[in-house]
Amino acid sequence: MEKALILAQRAFDADEVPVGAIVVNSQGKIIGRGRNKVEERHTQIAHAECNAIAQAGKKVGDWRLEGCWIYVTLEPCSLCMHLILMSRLKGVVFGASSPLFGFRLGLQEPLSLDKKGNLMVIPNISAPRAATLLKTFFKHKRKA
Amino acid sequence: MEKALILAQRAFDADEVPVGAIVVNSQGKIIGRGRNKVEERHTQIAHAECNAIAQAGKKVGDWRLEGCWIYVTLEPCSLCMHLILMSRLKGVVFGASSPLFGFRLGLQEPLSLDKKGNLMVIPNISAPRAATLLKTFFKHKRKA
Repeated sequence: MEKALILAQRAFDADEVPVGAIVVNSQGKIIGRGRNKVEERHTQIAHAECNAIAQAGKKVGDWRLEGCWIYVTLEPCSLCMHLILMSRLKGVVFGASSPLFGFRLGLQEPLSLDKKGNLMVIPNISAPRAATLLKTFFKHKRKA
Repeated sequence: MEKALILAQRAFDADEVPVGAIVVNSQGKIIGRGRNKVEERHTQIAHAECNAIAQAGKKVGDWRLEGCWIYVTLEPCSLCMHLILMSRLKGVVFGASSPLFGFRLGLQEPLSLDKKGNLMVIPNISAPRAATLLKTFFKHKRKA
């Protein structure tokens, strides 16, 4: 998550909503890195998770990322969550909750694993740091 | 839809699940074209709709595609449907139904517009041609 936070900081520096993500394989090796590039690339499929997963797929030469985990600084949105499921990752670790856009839509109860197949979801890791970065970003934006 | 079917045929020729999509702006001008490239690019974010929407965003220099419509030969999956919603398109016209992976998950009742905000959804346009292409593709795959 430390490395995902560094990528989120880079998004912040590039004036993008500060979200970073990394994909690690079953040996714990990083095979994909991504930061939010929605404004730079003019498309919503440039979320941090999309970029990290696309890079991982390219690296391993397969869209199937079985056994891999994604670490992302913000709760994934529904788009990214579907991408994670379709890419067959093993699990998701995320930082700050996203009550407005997160796939849980602000629900606080633990995610039912049945609902998401065998995907494991671990929320709120390093959440304060990820959240502070986001809050600082939006405070600057509102002032601008 | 005719142009989307041509793109689907190109996906077929490239040994990809044959799906094609185009994005048109409010003047009816094509601003994005995409065909399925999941195998070529090794990622599930290379669905036809993703590629067409990414190209449209690049073309207009904005991820917000308000007033635009997407024409796609197959019912979008949930990933693509969320992308369509987040990219603020006005509507979706699709061809064949996708009972296994479509965002309606095989439900046949008309989509509630309330559930999808103001997005308009028009199903089953040129469906037989789109479906025939898909069926032929999977028949070949099973034989191989």
